[in-house]
Amino acid sequence: MQPFPQPLSGNDMPRFGGLASMMRLPVETDLTKLDACFVGVPLDLGTSNRTGTRAGPRQIRSESVMLRPYNMATRIAPFERMRVADYGDIAINPYNLLDSIERIEAAFARIAAADCRPVTLGGDHTIVLPILRAMHKRYGKLGLVHVDAHADVNDTMFGEKIAHGTPFRRAVEEGLLDCSRVVQIGLRGTGYSADEFDWGRAQGFQVIPAEECWHHSLQPLMRDVKARVQGGPVYLSFDIDGLDPAYAPGTGTLEIGGLTVPQGLEIIRGLAGVDLIGGDVVEVSPPFDPFGATALLAANLAFEILCIISQTK
Amino acid sequence: MQPFPQPLSGNDMPRFGGLASMMRLPVETDLTKLDACFVGVPLDLGTSNRTGTRAGPRQIRSESVMLRPYNMATRIAPFERMRVADYGDIAINPYNLLDSIERIEAAFARIAAADCRPVTLGGDHTIVLPILRAMHKRYGKLGLVHVDAHADVNDTMFGEKIAHGTPFRRAVEEGLLDCSRVVQIGLRGTGYSADEFDWGRAQGFQVIPAEECWHHSLQPLMRDVKARVQGGPVYLSFDIDGLDPAYAPGTGTLEIGGLTVPQGLEIIRGLAGVDLIGGDVVEVSPPFDPFGATALLAANLAFEILCIISQTK
Amino acid sequence: MQPFPQPLSGNDMPRFGGLASMMRLPVETDLTKLDACFVGVPLDLGTSNRTGTRAGPRQIRSESVMLRPYNMATRIAPFERMRVADYGDIAINPYNLLDSIERIEAAFARIAAADCRPVTLGGDHTIVLPILRAMHKRYGKLGLVHVDAHADVNDTMFGEKIAHGTPFRRAVEEGLLDCSRVVQIGLRGTGYSADEFDWGRAQGFQVIPAEECWHHSLQPLMRDVKARVQGGPVYLSFDIDGLDPAYAPGTGTLEIGGLTVPQGLEIIRGLAGVDLIGGDVVEVSPPFDPFGATALLAANLAFEILCIISQTK
Amino acid sequence: MQPFPQPLSGNDMPRFGGLASMMRLPVETDLTKLDACFVGVPLDLGTSNRTGTRAGPRQIRSESVMLRPYNMATRIAPFERMRVADYGDIAINPYNLLDSIERIEAAFARIAAADCRPVTLGGDHTIVLPILRAMHKRYGKLGLVHVDAHADVNDTMFGEKIAHGTPFRRAVEEGLLDCSRVVQIGLRGTGYSADEFDWGRAQGFQVIPAEECWHHSLQPLMRDVKARVQGGPVYLSFDIDGLDPAYAPGTGTLEIGGLTVPQGLEIIRGLAGVDLIGGDVVEVSPPFDPFGATALLAANLAFEILCIISQTK
Amino acid sequence: MQPFPQPLSGNDMPRFGGLASMMRLPVETDLTKLDACFVGVPLDLGTSNRTGTRAGPRQIRSESVMLRPYNMATRIAPFERMRVADYGDIAINPYNLLDSIERIEAAFARIAAADCRPVTLGGDHTIVLPILRAMHKRYGKLGLVHVDAHADVNDTMFGEKIAHGTPFRRAVEEGLLDCSRVVQIGLRGTGYSADEFDWGRAQGFQVIPAEECWHHSLQPLMRDVKARVQGGPVYLSFDIDGLDPAYAPGTGTLEIGGLTVPQGLEIIRGLAGVDLIGGDVVEVSPPFDPFGATALLAANLAFEILCIISQTK
Amino acid sequence: MQPFPQPLSGNDMPRFGGLASMMRLPVETDLTKLDACFVGVPLDLGTSNRTGTRAGPRQIRSESVMLRPYNMATRIAPFERMRVADYGDIAINPYNLLDSIERIEAAFARIAAADCRPVTLGGDHTIVLPILRAMHKRYGKLGLVHVDAHADVNDTMFGEKIAHGTPFRRAVEEGLLDCSRVVQIGLRGTGYSADEFDWGRAQGFQVIPAEECWHHSLQPLMRDVKARVQGGPVYLSFDIDGLDPAYAPGTGTLEIGGLTVPQGLEIIRGLAGVDLIGGDVVEVSPPFDPFGATALLAANLAFEILCIISQTK
Repeated sequence: MQPFPQPLSGNDMPRFGGLASMMRLPVETDLTKLDACFVGVPLDLGTSNRTGTRAGPRQIRSESVMLRPYNMATRIAPFERMRVADYGDIAINPYNLLDSIERIEAAFARIAAADCRPVTLGGDHTIVLPILRAMHKRYGKLGLVHVDAHADVNDTMFGEKIAHGTPFRRAVEEGLLDCSRVVQIGLRGTGYSADEFDWGRAQGFQVIPAEECWHHSLQPLMRDVKARVQGGPVYLSFDIDGLDPAYAPGTGTLEIGGLTVPQGLEIIRGLAGVDLIGGDVVEVSPPFDPFGATALLAANLAFEILCIISQTK
Repeated sequence: MQPFPQPLSGNDMPRFGGLASMMRLPVETDLTKLDACFVGVPLDLGTSNRTGTRAGPRQIRSESVMLRPYNMATRIAPFERMRVADYGDIAINPYNLLDSIERIEAAFARIAAADCRPVTLGGDHTIVLPILRAMHKRYGKLGLVHVDAHADVNDTMFGEKIAHGTPFRRAVEEGLLDCSRVVQIGLRGTGYSADEFDWGRAQGFQVIPAEECWHHSLQPLMRDVKARVQGGPVYLSFDIDGLDPAYAPGTGTLEIGGLTVPQGLEIIRGLAGVDLIGGDVVEVSPPFDPFGATALLAANLAFEILCIISQTK
Repeated sequence: MQPFPQPLSGNDMPRFGGLASMMRLPVETDLTKLDACFVGVPLDLGTSNRTGTRAGPRQIRSESVMLRPYNMATRIAPFERMRVADYGDIAINPYNLLDSIERIEAAFARIAAADCRPVTLGGDHTIVLPILRAMHKRYGKLGLVHVDAHADVNDTMFGEKIAHGTPFRRAVEEGLLDCSRVVQIGLRGTGYSADEFDWGRAQGFQVIPAEECWHHSLQPLMRDVKARVQGGPVYLSFDIDGLDPAYAPGTGTLEIGGLTVPQGLEIIRGLAGVDLIGGDVVEVSPPFDPFGATALLAANLAFEILCIISQTK
Repeated sequence: MQPFPQPLSGNDMPRFGGLASMMRLPVETDLTKLDACFVGVPLDLGTSNRTGTRAGPRQIRSESVMLRPYNMATRIAPFERMRVADYGDIAINPYNLLDSIERIEAAFARIAAADCRPVTLGGDHTIVLPILRAMHKRYGKLGLVHVDAHADVNDTMFGEKIAHGTPFRRAVEEGLLDCSRVVQIGLRGTGYSADEFDWGRAQGFQVIPAEECWHHSLQPLMRDVKARVQGGPVYLSFDIDGLDPAYAPGTGTLEIGGLTVPQGLEIIRGLAGVDLIGGDVVEVSPPFDPFGATALLAANLAFEILCIISQTK
Repeated sequence: MQPFPQPLSGNDMPRFGGLASMMRLPVETDLTKLDACFVGVPLDLGTSNRTGTRAGPRQIRSESVMLRPYNMATRIAPFERMRVADYGDIAINPYNLLDSIERIEAAFARIAAADCRPVTLGGDHTIVLPILRAMHKRYGKLGLVHVDAHADVNDTMFGEKIAHGTPFRRAVEEGLLDCSRVVQIGLRGTGYSADEFDWGRAQGFQVIPAEECWHHSLQPLMRDVKARVQGGPVYLSFDIDGLDPAYAPGTGTLEIGGLTVPQGLEIIRGLAGVDLIGGDVVEVSPPFDPFGATALLAANLAFEILCIISQTK
Repeated sequence: MQPFPQPLSGNDMPRFGGLASMMRLPVETDLTKLDACFVGVPLDLGTSNRTGTRAGPRQIRSESVMLRPYNMATRIAPFERMRVADYGDIAINPYNLLDSIERIEAAFARIAAADCRPVTLGGDHTIVLPILRAMHKRYGKLGLVHVDAHADVNDTMFGEKIAHGTPFRRAVEEGLLDCSRVVQIGLRGTGYSADEFDWGRAQGFQVIPAEECWHHSLQPLMRDVKARVQGGPVYLSFDIDGLDPAYAPGTGTLEIGGLTVPQGLEIIRGLAGVDLIGGDVVEVSPPFDPFGATALLAANLAFEILCIISQTK
């Protein structure tokens, strides 16, 4: 007997058939029926270089049809532990970034209020600000694990306060984060000045540049990270450009020398036992990856995040 | 008030958002609620050259999100006249062509029995045989308008009776067609012998090679075609390779010198008033058109077919 | 002796070498030295479906390096008649559509004030509104030739007044156009209602759907169009999606059944003798055309527009 | 009984299997056994803009596997009339254009001396000069039908006498052509001066710009062309960029507003009865057409040329 | 003097010229002249998700033209030790999986009977079952090294016994394998249950999940593997999806977190001295890798397998 | 106050806008104003397999617009220490390799004579010979760090002395190098004989095959390399194919099993303190990487080389 929603099996409908909901789960918008959900935010209005992330949620879903329900590595079967469905997309305003941010916050406030834990499919990284606002409203100050090539703590971009390079500066200013429980992993590349990485450190963040990750497993690091972020609600924000462009070419601001996929998986799996109240995979830009390998990677990462949530919820 | 199912509007959800059902219509599997439906058949086991048509229905749906409900040229608004939804895909057997053919026939028999007129998203052209079998069972001998680069009347391919180059030979042999009401348009290319076009003529088909279509409107031709096929139920089978590869590169057996898209539209629109009991758009192979222009074209053709159905049903 | 700026010759620097300014012309920002200019507006914030037009100006320039200075068909050599250079790009605000519109208007007001006639490389079609505002300020009510698949006369999109589907409604409301001297060519596709094409007609526009253009030369039509728009300053706005997707796949909202490139050239060349005070080629979206054929097409169209300007200025 | 070499049938080996010789014909280097041959010249050292034509012969062969032996439109079966095989490629020198030209001339002299008529798969258009030299040595002054966007009659390019834009100037200077029997079709685009088209006319060429071909069948034109070139040996040189980029994107110097494929076929088929002593299809550049549609088009054109040769030889 | 067949040198024919046999070796179908051969099996009828592997052998050959005859790392020169040629492709039945399996088995039985050791270019993984049947007939119970993301030991897929996810279950059931000498390396991803990896272990397989391979050399592992499989004939089956999608995007069922190419090479090279009676590289799907990097990788792996065979044969 | 030329900031002009000079630096051809420069050499006439590197400089510049002026990892800000600009491209002769080599040498002799240190954007690897000649003329015998998959020390290729596989043989013969201060890193793949790697060793080179680099940091190696090459002027030649195809698919002669990007960065950064008198990044071939990830990688490597130069100059 299967009391919970289940992905459509490849033995009932070939994987290339049927509607492409996330993992071919049922679509469900009644939040009272859900413990967790996948939700898309098709925004690219906060992007500084190449756009295209508005197409991310749809292509992540299309590629997710490959995923089966059991995680062979961690032996977690999330759909046997929780009620999970595809909640669909948030209707952002395609011509107005600030209105979109409000729409996103309102939607996630509803999700959080229903005690449903969201795994979000982006969308550019600007979306994490309204999500954190909504999560903070429900859970209070949040711990954060932030995987990214960029610190995203600029004060402004082109004079604007809201953009995909500023959300974590805003989140700190608004008091959404418990800065002692914030870790940034994978930062690298070029910048305007040293301040870009040092600002976070000055707030109390632990900042792990990509160079410190090269050539070895991140399991030892993650033991420290877990110890640091534990003790309260934690959010995981995974910018796909934290990974190296060899693995994730389908994104807008590629930075060379990034994390490997095994390291990315070690980061997520290393959070087992943490009280993960939500997570996202952002910055997937399908026009730059027409065969969907980056979207498939994002779908897997989203599933791995769900697996961690399923252990604590 | 909208009594019938309607496509999700771009003013409610941006076109790049939401689940990609056909035209973002509701999904409905209760045939009693429908006058017509879009249905996918993700088959490529009958293909002789390049595969990939199993991915056709999904990509046609993804691109169809651009379509709005009103046909500016013909001034037809099908969703105001009929109850139409996305019926989903038929679960073919990915490892067995003959079993797949049976599954398809059974599914279309159910659709036809419910008096629901199907507009099918292929899939390779083999699927038209079980569809014609099911339509024949419900409607008797069928008229046929067949747009294609190839006659698809081989006796066998690689020794097999069932393949994407044989369905109309089988259909004649099985008595499914009223051969005096069959027209093939767009045939061209290379073959094994003159027999490939002449066999159909010997059965009574009207055969219009592509060369006869070059450089001019097909409206005069279509007046003749319409006169020929009228007087009974008619099925329209539109192989995307009937069109020139410049318009439809995403298919498996490209033939140069094909029809233009305006001609393809003239063919469909030229059937206005005919008792069209169903139609298909087949042989869309997304791996060979990663940005979806061929799928978008197919989605438009499927919508145009629906518009014609809506006038007579 | 060459008194005017000239494109860098392929015999001095191979076409694949050197910096990719438009046609490898000098870059010049002192407007007093110019009779006409190419100018880029890298905007995609007004886009309803696929983004990417922000990359248009750069890729159009990259492909324009193929162009030589003499128009073989019309025997026009614009750089022997006028001082023309590449003015560079307008710095739009990547996070704010309305601020961008103001920045564009201000920049074109400066260009127009200097009696320099701009040939603009888009960017999405929203940019034509601030351009028309600036042109109107300098020249008074404008005639308009508008090539497009879409009428772009929506009142709002997703509730917003400013977007790439609304500029000509706004332009009429603001009194920028002499509606009796407005022609729209190439309209087609699906819509929400008949109103989309009829609204323009109600304002006095001549509206030529694509269907009226199929299969024949537009030279006869253009004699009428020219007669209609003459007698005052005229602006030409050429949305690349007016052409068929076979010719111009690199755009965001493909509509099947469009104009051919010969027809597009006939439209531009058919304006010879008109007082063309500027023009644009918009909606080129490079991510969807990685080898640049659409950008090369746009570069050619921009050059053809310049040739027409050079005859009257 | 099959006395002549035949393409491998799709009923013996699927089209996607087996070695990719041209049309899956046998490979034969003993010229005494052949009346005609396909031969590749993988050169791109004469290219002015984008390279890549060195990969042309291999990709044309790969795509040619789709071709069956019978021409449905013209009802010609060349392999029943002539002994034809794939002669392989000429080993050009990848680092030295002038040495390559000598190697090509020597190879074609051997082919012509054996009374074997070559259908050549290019390679950039520079190769036509050594081919014409070899053909002239065997046949005397040649008539020429030259399909192209460019006249290729520059005196020099970047100071060099030998390049892909100069072969026909050299051929005239060397007395290889009977200028009264030379026709150029499809010329267009931008140039350095009017001289580019007028030089040929001054030699006695008939020059048909693309604009004269737009919107109508070329059958009437070809009756004139045939009358003009008949009365002696004729060579056909078909630069794929004579066709519009919509049909042939895989080439190095795209020019908009080109011929359609039906027109290209009308040109070749319009030469039926002419004493065609050889032909080529050049400038196919596979890196710019990864799915091979341009190569498939070229393969078809080469087959059509062979069909014409088979009627007179 | 070269007594054995040799690849065509790049100094005799440029690498982009000549027919694309494997490594530009001679084609030879007389098995008595060969100690080993490359052979293609262009099958994709056993595929569960994306098709396209039918195009694998041709593209692997096209890319293999880059390979020179000497292995710089292992200092092995196989063509100086063995008679090796390209045997061509097995003619599978494009419409019938079961008939194809019989055809493959018959062909490999002939190859094995001639004491010719095959290095097979796939084709989907279903082909390994008939190959193992043929090898078993000749050599008795086989040891196996199986590199893959998937265990391929399903009982059925979509109700079918023969598919690309079942061959090793069948091989065990049919007694083809010495289960104590079977090793699977690289397994990972999602599944239906824990059984997918545990079933093999229950048969006595050594199963090495990808996670155990991350971040380090596999040389120590391979010492164990070699010790385990030695003592009898061994077959090596290398599914390209065993490697990470960053290295091998051109395949049908991508799984993230896979082996690196250095690890893949360590696996093959680690078998030096084993009695390798054949091997394959399967699941290369060219439509998803249009520039051929995956096919080039597969060509290299096939050459490395040949090098190992050359040491023991 | 900014005394030195600075890249255009993303806060003044969005990164997708403005002309694509290298890093959006000013263009400057007066060498007296510069301490270092970026310079392009768009050559592909020395290529043995796939061409396309002539498009390298332009695409590297297009992608370089992402780069900001400060190196986060090494904390170097080169534009605060040196006067750097984009010097533009060297006009090679597209039809003549030997003339191109002379043109390149002459240009770099001018650059070196002005004490301006060049960071060169290739172009195929043949260009390093004339660069080394020019550098030797100014600096005397040079140390060399050469990152590559290939040794490039062939005596001839296809009988020619000058080609992209011979420059370092020529450089040794001409006495340009201090062979005791030459290191080659990343060599691998197939060859004609063992001589290919051993010849360099016989001259005194240190040769590090890729296999010695697998799985670990190159920092220890680079301490040795630095010690070896120090004590005189050093040139760094970085062939992008030294890196693995997963990171750098856009090149002409892919070799599997290459260096990782972190290793590539360790090599460059490991030269801090060495008297680096110039460097290059070569063999970027944009047609094989349409979305520019390889070009972006090359732009980053070029910037990292500049950072090292800025420390010693």
